[in-house]
Formats: sequence, structure tokens, C-alpha cells
Amino acid sequence: MNKKAEFTSAIRCSEAFHIESVYPCVDSARFAVKRIVGEPIEVWVDVYRDGHDVTAAALLWRHESEREWRRSEMIYHSNDRWFASFVPEEIGRYFYAIEAWTDEFATWRRGFELKQKAGADVAVDAIEGASLLKKAIAPDPEAATLIARQCELFSQNGNVAALLADQLKDAMATSQARPDLTRSQLFPLVIDRPQARYGTWYEMIPRSQSTIPGRHGTFKDCIARLTDVSAMGFDVVYFTPIHPIGRINRKGRNNSAIAAKGDPGSLYAIGAAEGGHDAVHPELGTLQDFRDFVVACSSLGMEVALDFAVQCSPDHPWLKQYPKWFKRRPDGSMRYAENPPKKYEDIVNPDFSSKDASGLRNALRDVVLFWIEQGVKIFRVDNPHTKPFRFWEWLIQEVRGRHPDVIFLAEAFTRPKLMKGLAKLGFTQSYTYFTWRTHKWEIEEYLNELTAYPEREFYRPNFFVNTPDILPYHLQGGEPWMFKSRVALAGTLSSTYGIYNGFELLEHEPIPGREEYLDSEKYEIKVRDWNKPGNIKPYIAQLNRIRRENAALQQTYNLRFVGIDDPNVTAFVKQSIDQSNTVAVAIALSRDTHEFWLPFGDTLVTVNGERRQAAAVENLVTGERSALDWGGIKLRIEPDRDPALFFRCLA
Amino acid sequence: MNKKAEFTSAIRCSEAFHIESVYPCVDSARFAVKRIVGEPIEVWVDVYRDGHDVTAAALLWRHESEREWRRSEMIYHSNDRWFASFVPEEIGRYFYAIEAWTDEFATWRRGFELKQKAGADVAVDAIEGASLLKKAIAPDPEAATLIARQCELFSQNGNVAALLADQLKDAMATSQARPDLTRSQLFPLVIDRPQARYGTWYEMIPRSQSTIPGRHGTFKDCIARLTDVSAMGFDVVYFTPIHPIGRINRKGRNNSAIAAKGDPGSLYAIGAAEGGHDAVHPELGTLQDFRDFVVACSSLGMEVALDFAVQCSPDHPWLKQYPKWFKRRPDGSMRYAENPPKKYEDIVNPDFSSKDASGLRNALRDVVLFWIEQGVKIFRVDNPHTKPFRFWEWLIQEVRGRHPDVIFLAEAFTRPKLMKGLAKLGFTQSYTYFTWRTHKWEIEEYLNELTAYPEREFYRPNFFVNTPDILPYHLQGGEPWMFKSRVALAGTLSSTYGIYNGFELLEHEPIPGREEYLDSEKYEIKVRDWNKPGNIKPYIAQLNRIRRENAALQQTYNLRFVGIDDPNVTAFVKQSIDQSNTVAVAIALSRDTHEFWLPFGDTLVTVNGERRQAAAVENLVTGERSALDWGGIKLRIEPDRDPALFFRCLA
Repeated sequence: MNKKAEFTSAIRCSEAFHIESVYPCVDSARFAVKRIVGEPIEVWVDVYRDGHDVTAAALLWRHESEREWRRSEMIYHSNDRWFASFVPEEIGRYFYAIEAWTDEFATWRRGFELKQKAGADVAVDAIEGASLLKKAIAPDPEAATLIARQCELFSQNGNVAALLADQLKDAMATSQARPDLTRSQLFPLVIDRPQARYGTWYEMIPRSQSTIPGRHGTFKDCIARLTDVSAMGFDVVYFTPIHPIGRINRKGRNNSAIAAKGDPGSLYAIGAAEGGHDAVHPELGTLQDFRDFVVACSSLGMEVALDFAVQCSPDHPWLKQYPKWFKRRPDGSMRYAENPPKKYEDIVNPDFSSKDASGLRNALRDVVLFWIEQGVKIFRVDNPHTKPFRFWEWLIQEVRGRHPDVIFLAEAFTRPKLMKGLAKLGFTQSYTYFTWRTHKWEIEEYLNELTAYPEREFYRPNFFVNTPDILPYHLQGGEPWMFKSRVALAGTLSSTYGIYNGFELLEHEPIPGREEYLDSEKYEIKVRDWNKPGNIKPYIAQLNRIRRENAALQQTYNLRFVGIDDPNVTAFVKQSIDQSNTVAVAIALSRDTHEFWLPFGDTLVTVNGERRQAAAVENLVTGERSALDWGGIKLRIEPDRDPALFFRCLA
Repeated sequence: MNKKAEFTSAIRCSEAFHIESVYPCVDSARFAVKRIVGEPIEVWVDVYRDGHDVTAAALLWRHESEREWRRSEMIYHSNDRWFASFVPEEIGRYFYAIEAWTDEFATWRRGFELKQKAGADVAVDAIEGASLLKKAIAPDPEAATLIARQCELFSQNGNVAALLADQLKDAMATSQARPDLTRSQLFPLVIDRPQARYGTWYEMIPRSQSTIPGRHGTFKDCIARLTDVSAMGFDVVYFTPIHPIGRINRKGRNNSAIAAKGDPGSLYAIGAAEGGHDAVHPELGTLQDFRDFVVACSSLGMEVALDFAVQCSPDHPWLKQYPKWFKRRPDGSMRYAENPPKKYEDIVNPDFSSKDASGLRNALRDVVLFWIEQGVKIFRVDNPHTKPFRFWEWLIQEVRGRHPDVIFLAEAFTRPKLMKGLAKLGFTQSYTYFTWRTHKWEIEEYLNELTAYPEREFYRPNFFVNTPDILPYHLQGGEPWMFKSRVALAGTLSSTYGIYNGFELLEHEPIPGREEYLDSEKYEIKVRDWNKPGNIKPYIAQLNRIRRENAALQQTYNLRFVGIDDPNVTAFVKQSIDQSNTVAVAIALSRDTHEFWLPFGDTLVTVNGERRQAAAVENLVTGERSALDWGGIKLRIEPDRDPALFFRCLA
């Protein structure tokens, strides 16, 4: 806020113009718009002042590290609306603003020409034009010379044409005084690397990656799994917490209040004698082993995402080191986490209203910075919706101020406005309700909400088909077509999506009547046959190849649902930001055979920079090409063979 | 702006809550919402914080003259949206704001009851609840006593029920600390008297009110006209400028550049040796005569509106008194008004960028204050769109700060955003494009625009059927049905409308090929037979009676167009703010006979405070009642008899 004030007051501005309805903008510029590096930002704005004088406007922008503004001339569209664009070439925080002023010389010139045409005496008008030249202060010698020369030409022989030269008009546009210059407020913009928008996540529980039943998995076991994960086409391996796990009040299997001997405890009960948020669980290996894992991922073109969960186990070292950070009850006992009547006695939440709140905040920031030093650039933040807003806004700016390539994913499954509020505060990506959206109408309604303005400017969805906490009802039947349909939906509707390990094996056994896994590995160690018969790994690999090869699927916002005369098929067209790639997708939501007509309507394809009507499609699985007939195509889906069809549109 | 800052900083606020999407609000509270005194303002807002604690919110409001906020508790609606309302009981400028905080005691109580129900040990929880009581600071002795008593009851015998008493919850709601109190920015609100929204204007050229051909009309002649005007049901008599008229470069008839001997000049060439903006034209009478006219209007329940035109004739006294206010050209000549290639050599515009700009502004404000002293409370402002925005915002606040009952009507016929911009700056009412909107689709589209949010919060239309400057093409045929149709449209679509004198006589002779009156009385004196055969005075009187008797027609925003299967009939339903009066209107836009079905659909009528489906209608002209048949009514319009039908809906 202070920075904003500083830069706004740096020039003296009039209020001669109204500068309104700036696009893009989130909550009157209280929050930043998010975009991707190297992609043009088009800014639109209403600019007007009183009267009929000629208006000029410029778009200003700068990276927060720069002192000088860059500028583009704004172009008049219609109805007092102007536009311009710029390309942010670095990641980080930007500002943009709009300036408007009166082009006095162009106003004079227009009036002069009208009067001249109407046959009026323009002798005095010409002198007035010349006097504007005398007042000009050219920013460069070339303009100065030109202005002086034209002025001289007029003075010597009253040559009016000298005042009307097009070159002079251009020189004056940059050289004349701008007494009524008006500048808008500043609009914040966050520029991310491409991974912020396009990513394919594999959630892995490291302690379950051992091949020997009953043995705690290690980072080395995780490294051994990477070729399998990479072969499926994932580019982010997301680790649930890797820290020492508390022993006090440790949870047993299936979240039971009392742990049996040898139970490993909940992954989210962070901290023990061995260390806290900056330590690794000894049975996983050493910090060096973790760094080796990061390198191994990198060598396969993958990144590591780490869980960042603020809570502590009751034996986390911080409880002794910083007792002020933890609230106690009137009887002196620890205030455990709770959501009445549920109690979580294996964790305590630090108190953000503690007298040493700044110490707490700094320690949490330093945890993130520590893992960045170990090579982690993506953090999946656990339950951000139960910590203060100001903390997240501060933390994300603190971290990204030093490392603008860091990505924060908000794992908040809560009320819609709270989820959007967190995204506004700075989270790069957000979990969504996709996991539970199954009907055609609700899928389409939800995607239309997420891709609408202004949501699309701050809320980047990451569609998970399942999580360690969520085994949705529709997967509990274990039907392969449904698993395929869900992963196809996630991977084509959203440019970022993820699966939690076991999904590829069709794992589906619930706690009866609940959307939770039975024998959840949050509370125990599992060992799986990762090549179990019936797995859908080839299907996932194929989906991820199609995503990788089609830029249209690497963004979420350029999405249009297509009307299909089948209540259980959703179909849509997506186009890449640069319009070079257009993909059509149809996915079955029920197991019966579907035959339907997919009309392409006004789908345009860019060929050699030229926009043409789509005339044919190529099946992205079979490579088969079909000409469109009557502007569409007749399709058939047999979900048990494959519930989804993917096409590339051809001109 | 300073005042805003002062009151925002008066309390220390956290940023624990997001307070968003406040309704009503114009341009992020940069501009004021406009409403009418005595009518409830409903405020809606999204309020949320992190976590699951119980939130409380209050709506704060105060008149700008008050130091203390008034408060209403906000009520939770759904999806983090809250509402509350208040009734501004005075005219003038208000502010409102929203406060949100955590109700710690209610949070404790909810958790306690959930745990108690689940059979948990709640002994320590009870102590925690009691400790909240001890920290409370009650705002009144009653609450203090209650809190102390319940605390005592619990302490003495561990009586948990004492902590759960409903009364205690209410007392604690007002008494507990609010450490995370968050206050929104302030939202400005302008409260006007009812005339700001509902008025019936008669535009009168005072010098044309004489009964003797060739003689200059006087204020006394105008007084003689008032019974006629009042009988037609008008409540505002709007006078074009009444000031001395310049002699230098005086315009002749039909705007000719040279005046003939005896030509009276343009009404808008203000100022001469006899005086300027605060003088009356000697031939109209004296200032006392003008005051007598104001009193005569008042005795008939009418108000006077005066033209406020900033420009000066070249012989206005200000040109000699304050030469700095007027720009000269390089040859020393006066810079006359112009809109190239058009020149207005009988007027000069003062220069708002003059070195004595504040002297100019103050003088213009003092002109307005001078006429207020003479009893004028309504100003029709000529061409505000050619003077600086800041001037209007300042002038209106200066005047209304002293006289909040003053109404400013912006006469800007220009680009849509500029017209809306002037309304935002503070004009009470605005001219519109209605004068030229004739097709059904464009009438409905335009009204839907004006009545949409946020336009309806700042832009109050005043529909003129004609003006001294505008004789629209559709009136040039002089067809009575068309004049009736237009006045019926103006008077029912908009709660404020006006006619310019002569309309009631079906005057319609244009300058050929233009939408202007031939022999315009802007440049000459006219004498008319105000009872000319064929006049539509009774029709206008009837329309204005219906408007007066039906509150639904005294507001513009509660409007719903009804689908009619006739492209040349527009039909709509309006309901009064208090929902007690519902009116349906159907108006023909072409001269042929129309037969159509008017479906009432979901039209509800309030009877004894109960909302019921409309079951019958009463014709407001004939008094005839008809039951609705299949939820609608079959209608017939013969425009030559009457192009409009007006009904009151009955339950």
C-alpha cells in the first residue's frame, strides 16, 4: 500500500479525466491479476473528459524492481473505450496504470482544418497553432529540430502548410505540455512461470513407496518409482509431509484415538524429538536423500511439490522453544486443534495472535525458505482457510519477493467466497469442488464460473480426481470407465490437475457410507503392486501426452461448452492463447453407449496466421481424420472402451 | 476525501475480514449512491474471515453533520452474504460502512453445546466461557449486571446453564471485546427530497408569455399563465434564462449572424449593461416581480426551475470587471465560443484554467446562491459537459452543503459515458436520449440500461418530449396520436418528465430537414393562443392526474417490460417502492389499430401487507374493472382515440 501511494504521488495529476472500468482488475485493484510470463496483457479502459478536445492516453507498466515506467500508446476503440497491450518479460510483481491528457495541438489542428474547409479566416488560428509549437519541450533532438523548423517556416512566410505536416503532429504528440494529465491508480499484476497454469500432479505418500510389506518407504524407494510416474506423463511429484511425526497422542489406523505399537502416526502430526518443519522423518532418509530425490525428479523433467502444514504435534520442538506461540487452557493443558465436537489431539495450532506473532510468522516463512534451498519451488498449503488472511498475504509476498518462481497451491475445501478470497490474497493455484461435480449441468456451471471474469484473473484451478482425504462416491464402484472419465475430465477441463497415488490402480474401498478411504495411508504404511492388473496407467499416459502436445489444453480459460443432445455427455472446445491450437473434447458421464452430433458451429482455427472455419478434425488417439459434415461430426462413445474422445480441429 | 480518511482512521481496524461486493455502490465508492429521504436503504455485503468462528456484522451510517455512527445489526442471508437496512430521515450527504468481528462468546457457546451433546468432558470449556464473561465491558448497566450475575452463578456452584442463558448470549454480543474488528471503507450516499425523483416539468419561455403580439412578455404575464399550467398538472415551471441579453454580435431570428433592429437576441447570450447572471432582463420586470412569480407558483403547489448557463455575452459586466476570466486571441480579440467550424460570436466561455480560476468558481457559485435566496431550488444546468468535472463536483457540493434541497438537472446531450460521468459527479437529474428513442426495441433497451444497477443508483432520468433545441422528426407530422403517445411514454416510463411550451399545442414546424423548430423563440418573441383548437391539454392533465394518484409512476426503477406480441406496442408494469401500488401501461408506437394479449404473469399486488397474484385491473381513465382471464387481458388500442392504456392492478 505504501509503495502504491508513493508512486501515485510521484507526479502531480489533475482530475480532468475520468479513468474508469479498467480491465483486467480484481476488486478495484485491491488484489493482483495473475498472468503468465511472455503472454500479452491487453488492458481496456474508459477514458473521457468534458468537451470535445482530442484525448490521448497511454498504458504504463513496470516490474516492481524497475523505477521507470514503460509506456504504450492507447488506441481508441469506440464509445470512449481505449485499449493497449504489453508483454511482461519477467516473472514477479508488476504494476500498470493509465494516463490520459488532452492533445492540444491535435485539437487545434482538427479545428483549424474544419474552419479552413468552411472557408473561414484562419490567420489568427494559425498564429495560435504556432504559439503551441513555441511552448513545446521535445523529449528528443529530432522532434525539437522538426518543431523549430516548422515554426520557422511558418514565421518566415506565413506558410500554414508547415503547421499541418503529419510529422509535426506526431512530434507535438510527444512534445507538448500536458497540463491536464490525469493518472489512474496503480493496478497490481503477478506474472508467473508457465508451470503456474499448466501442470500434471502426482500425489505420492513417500512412506508407502517401499516394495517390502511393513517396511517404511524411503526417499530412495521414491526415486525408484520416478520412471513409472514420469512414464505416465506427470511433471509434478507432490509429497505429503516428510517430517518427523509426533508420538504424544499419536493416531492409530483409521484415525483411531489410540495408536497401536508400531503405528506410524498421522503424516500431518508434524514434529517430534527428531525435529520439526525443517527436518525429515529419519525413516525416510536424510536431507541429502531428499535433495537427491529433487535432483532425480529434475533429471526426468519433473518438479517436487511439498506439503506446507502449519500445525505441530504436541512434541514439536517449537512447543518448548517458543511456548508463547501455543495457547494453553485454564487448567494449564495444551489447547489442541478442534472443530467441535471433533478433536485433533495429535496436533496443536500455533496462535497467530500470540504476543510473539511476528516471531511465529518469521519462523514459518523461514521453513518455506529452507525447503526452497533444498530445491523445492512448489508448496501445497494445507488448510490455509483456518489461518489469518494477513498471514498468507504477507508470507506469499515475502517468499515470492525473493523467489518469484515459487508456486503456492491452496488446499482449502471450504465455502466458495473464502476459497476465492485466499486466491485473491496471492495463492498461485487453488483446489476446487471438481472432485464432487459429476452431473453435466454442474460441471458446466462450475467451469463457467471458474472461467468467467474476474474469477479467471485470480483463481487458477487444480483439479484433483481424488485425495488422501476424499474418495468420492462415484469412484467407490471401482468401475474403470468412471476412473477414465474422471481423469479425462480433470485433465482436459483444467490445465492443471492431479491424482493421488492409487487412483491409477482403481483403489476404491471406502469407509462404508463415507467419502473416505478405508485404511487410509494417512495413518499407516502401505505397499502396492504398482503394476497391478487392470491399472489405467497407459490411459493416463495417453491423456498426458495429448495434454503435452496440445497447447489448447495447457490453459483453462479459453473454454466453450458445445450443446450436445445427450444429458450424459459433456463436450467443449478449447483454444490455445495464441489461437494456433484448437481441441474438441467429448466425455461420457454415464456408462451406456452414447451416439450424438457434435456441432462445431463457429469454431475458428488459425492457419498461417489466418482465421478459418474448422473443416475437419483429427482424433488425437487414433490419428484418424474426418471432414466435418454440416459443420459437425457424428460421434459414438462406448464408455467401457473409452469414455472420452479428443480431437484437434483442422481448417 | 479528507473527511473520509479522518473517519476511517478514527478506530484501529484489523484486516481479519474481507468485506466485499458492497451493494449499493458506485465505482468502488468514488461516487455517491442517490436515494430519497424516508425510504429504506438495503445494504448487502460479502463478509468472511478464515476459520469457522461465529461472525457478527453491523451496518454503520451517519449524516455528514453527525459525529456518531448509528448502527443496525446485519443479518446473515447465505453464502457469506449479509444484509441490513436503515432509513435516512434527513436530506443531505450520508456515509455508510460495514463492520465485522468475531463473536467469541457465541463461538464458545456453539462449541460447548456441540461437545456437551457429544458427551465430552466440558469442565475446562465451561471455565473458558466464564473467563470471556470476566473480560467483557458492557456498554450499559443492565448488560453489566446480567453478565456479572451469570458469572457469579457459575462460579458459586459450577452451574453451566448460567453460561448458556439466551439473555447472556445477547448481552455478550454487545459487551465483549472485538480484537479483530474490521471496518470497510466509507460509502457516500446522497439523500434527496422526493421532487428529485418525481416531477412534472413545464418549460416556459417567459418573454413569450405576453398576450399582445410583438410585446415582450413579463413575469406578470407568466403569473397569469400559471393556472393553465397548474391545471395541466405540472409541478415545476422551468424558465429559460431571464437575464439581460447582450447587444454585441446579437443573433437575429433563426440564429442569423446579424440581428435586425428590435430582435431580442438569444436567451443564452447572458449579460449586458443592465447586469449579468444575477440580474433580470428589464423587459421581464424587476427582481421583485420574479420573487412574486416564485410565490405565485408556490401557492399553486409548483416550484420554479431556473436555467444556469455559464457563458457570457461579450457585453456581460464580468468581461470588464474580471478580464482574467476570459481568454483573448493573439491579436487581442475576444475568444468567442466555438465548435469548429461553428462559431458562437454572441457568447464567450469563461476560462476555468484562468489564473483567477477560484475567483471565477466562487462567482458562479454565488450566482446559484443568489437565486436560491430568491426562492429557486431547482437549476437546469446548460451544457455541463463542456466545463471541467472538478468544477461541477465542487459547485454541487458547495451549494448542497448549504442547501441540500437544491436539485441540479444536467442538460448534457452528448456521449453516454460523459452523461453518466456528470451524473456521478453529483447532478441530481439528467437529460436523456429518450427524445429520439421511438422503436420498441430501443425504448426497452434504453430503459433497461437506465434502470439497471449501478446506473439506477446515480443517474435519474428526466424525459423531455421536446426542447427549444429539439423538434424530433416523429413530431414534425403534427399527428395528435403521436404527441399523446410520446407524452404518455415520457410520463409513465420516467417518474420525471417535461414538455417545452408549445408541445401541448402540437407545434411542429421544423427547419426543413432538421430536428429544430423554425422561427425558434430562442431568437424571437412569440405570442400564442394557449387554447388553440386541437390542443392536448386535457390529455396531459389526465396523464398527470394518473401519475399523481399512482405512486408506481413516481419512480423509474421498479420497471418490468411485458412481452407483447405486437412490434409496435410497448407494455410494462411498474410498482411503487412500498409495493402498495402496481400499474400496467400499454402504449402504441404506430398509428394502426392494435389488438394484443397482455399477460401479467408473476405480477404481485400487496393487499393488507400480503403479496397476492394480480387478479383484476382497473382502467385508470374509465374506471372500468376487468378480471384477468388466464392471467392476462385482451386489449385493443386505437391510437387516434387514445394511444395509451393505463391500469391499476388489483388482487
